[in-house]
Amino acid sequence: MRKLVTLTTDFGLRDSYVAELKGALYAEGPSALEVVDLSHEIGPQNVREAALFVRAAWPRFPAGTLHLVVVDPGVGSTRRALAVAACNQLWLGPDNGVLSLVLRDQPAEVVALEPGRFTTRPVSATFHGRDVFAPAAARLAHGAALDELGARVTSPLVSLPWPHSVRSPDGLHGEVVHVDHFGNLISNVSGAELAELAGPGPWEGWCVRVRDGASIPIVRCYADAQGSGPVALLGSSDWLEVAIANGHASRQLGATVGAAMTIERNAC
Amino acid sequence: MRKLVTLTTDFGLRDSYVAELKGALYAEGPSALEVVDLSHEIGPQNVREAALFVRAAWPRFPAGTLHLVVVDPGVGSTRRALAVAACNQLWLGPDNGVLSLVLRDQPAEVVALEPGRFTTRPVSATFHGRDVFAPAAARLAHGAALDELGARVTSPLVSLPWPHSVRSPDGLHGEVVHVDHFGNLISNVSGAELAELAGPGPWEGWCVRVRDGASIPIVRCYADAQGSGPVALLGSSDWLEVAIANGHASRQLGATVGAAMTIERNAC
Amino acid sequence: MRKLVTLTTDFGLRDSYVAELKGALYAEGPSALEVVDLSHEIGPQNVREAALFVRAAWPRFPAGTLHLVVVDPGVGSTRRALAVAACNQLWLGPDNGVLSLVLRDQPAEVVALEPGRFTTRPVSATFHGRDVFAPAAARLAHGAALDELGARVTSPLVSLPWPHSVRSPDGLHGEVVHVDHFGNLISNVSGAELAELAGPGPWEGWCVRVRDGASIPIVRCYADAQGSGPVALLGSSDWLEVAIANGHASRQLGATVGAAMTIERNAC
Repeated sequence: MRKLVTLTTDFGLRDSYVAELKGALYAEGPSALEVVDLSHEIGPQNVREAALFVRAAWPRFPAGTLHLVVVDPGVGSTRRALAVAACNQLWLGPDNGVLSLVLRDQPAEVVALEPGRFTTRPVSATFHGRDVFAPAAARLAHGAALDELGARVTSPLVSLPWPHSVRSPDGLHGEVVHVDHFGNLISNVSGAELAELAGPGPWEGWCVRVRDGASIPIVRCYADAQGSGPVALLGSSDWLEVAIANGHASRQLGATVGAAMTIERNAC
Repeated sequence: MRKLVTLTTDFGLRDSYVAELKGALYAEGPSALEVVDLSHEIGPQNVREAALFVRAAWPRFPAGTLHLVVVDPGVGSTRRALAVAACNQLWLGPDNGVLSLVLRDQPAEVVALEPGRFTTRPVSATFHGRDVFAPAAARLAHGAALDELGARVTSPLVSLPWPHSVRSPDGLHGEVVHVDHFGNLISNVSGAELAELAGPGPWEGWCVRVRDGASIPIVRCYADAQGSGPVALLGSSDWLEVAIANGHASRQLGATVGAAMTIERNAC
Repeated sequence: MRKLVTLTTDFGLRDSYVAELKGALYAEGPSALEVVDLSHEIGPQNVREAALFVRAAWPRFPAGTLHLVVVDPGVGSTRRALAVAACNQLWLGPDNGVLSLVLRDQPAEVVALEPGRFTTRPVSATFHGRDVFAPAAARLAHGAALDELGARVTSPLVSLPWPHSVRSPDGLHGEVVHVDHFGNLISNVSGAELAELAGPGPWEGWCVRVRDGASIPIVRCYADAQGSGPVALLGSSDWLEVAIANGHASRQLGATVGAAMTIERNAC
């Protein structure tokens, strides 16, 4: 069985960086790997965006999948390069928090990569995706054990804070954590939190407000929108989101990452 | 033989949607599928653009290829989710017209997908690419028959109108149906229609006009352009197009989808 | 062993061109090829950008890899379509210089493709990626010899000039040859040229100037930047570059391809 190797980077596709990384992955021959592009359009140096991306994507993949996640502004400094076994999958990425939203509270085996153990090529100070993470991934795909790649890490990894939503007497106060390709405003309010506040859906009588804007009804799917106004709904990763059907909620509501999103009763 | 599975979506590559869909495709293991990205840059919710895209792309693929086409603003509503066998290939997509330019006048076997038959995971109201179409594709790739995935559909599918060009005493009146990455204006005037009007090419003495602009000569290839002016030529999918070599015809001529394009004799 | 086939084009991903090319590659069945997208975002008709891209990417790939490089504004004219064996790899692309930075001073076997030898489909005047290069690649992947695809070429190929940096008594004078996705300014000054001027690194006491801007210190990695100012460093392909950590050097310094970059002693 070939090993699934997924790629998530902030490299973009104009330059040769993704190409060089793929070449390094395939350097031992293509037969052991099934390379899958997830995204190369993570915002430049946006570790938080990559962490959210990976958290949403990984649960769909089968056991044994290997994920390379390279958003790495600290490359060449003293930040550690990690290989991790957790959640029945394998992970390679810098120790800057990019894996922390997956690994939170999960048992994990972690090693700090030592390139001398698995590559004979020079290691640059600016491109560990190509020079460290890809050769490590190739070794793992060819059957190496985690412990062959470096020494065990027992000290804590860098962890991103998670902006939890806050309950108050009159509702739930969250925020926008991502704006997607369609302009939808994805919040940090989960379906579980909404159900705790308002019971099982549908949530008639409950509304969403973005910053101090107008109240927005909660519906089931995009096509439930009446006219051209915004709607709120539980998105496919179980986060509350605000969308404008055939529109662009972020632009039209003037809201982006960090904007307050409040859930209130009877406000619309 | 692994089954070719092509992907055409409007998801973009910044978000985790393509990744989640790929994970769902590979959930039963990677060995049966050869996943091929065609485009994730179809304009958001632009069903017509996707329909034109698929019509141009599919004839190049070998018999047995499976195409996922997910541009799906009606997701979660009563619109049907289809699996289709036609043209010796397999098709998965919503019943919103996105497959209609391929299926026009073709014999086809069609079923309406019933997720309970092929997936045990919850089905969201907002992401059937991941929750319905990808699991159906995985089942087909692993050898399931179409009829195992849902009940036969005999009622008509949603169909997009096709804006035929119109013949008049002085020429042919078409329109721009797509602007490509190079800024070329692709029309709905086919090589066959042009030959019927003007005989077999080359078409010296015939010219093209975009809206009420200047007359444009018909040439054979981009490199035939003299100077920096626009040229018309028969594109690689056999549609007449207007291009500016090393330029951007759409911007420079101020024309986009829907602009009139007229073919006349002796006008340049 | 499946043959690695890499794709580098200026087609973008909105249109069906990449899809059509992939269909033509797979037309004989998917089992012999492992298709790897390198980039479809080369600047439209930017032969030089593609040539630099391929030169950086290819050394990472294993022997026997086949590279399709299709940036081809002269398609349909008298420019030759080439298949080349060089550097233990195979290359397909137009004779417009796009391969010339790889082939410079390398022994190579070259044939001019004759489509009648390897495809029975019509060959358009506007899309040889799909109609000529992809079918040729499929034949090579299925085991054809180079000489089955066309006649040997002995006349010189089109070659791009390389803007060498210039040594003067007070330093080294190069220029920006590429601006990457992060806004970094990549120069034509190599690590070897820098070492010849200034000895082995680190290069304390040496500085870089972009156009007539302020002096920029040379550091080892992006994370060495103090504050928000620009730094110069040896990039991952061994070219000197200027970057602004978490910024965009090209925009912030107002410099792009062609801007002078000078290396001087004791200037910062």
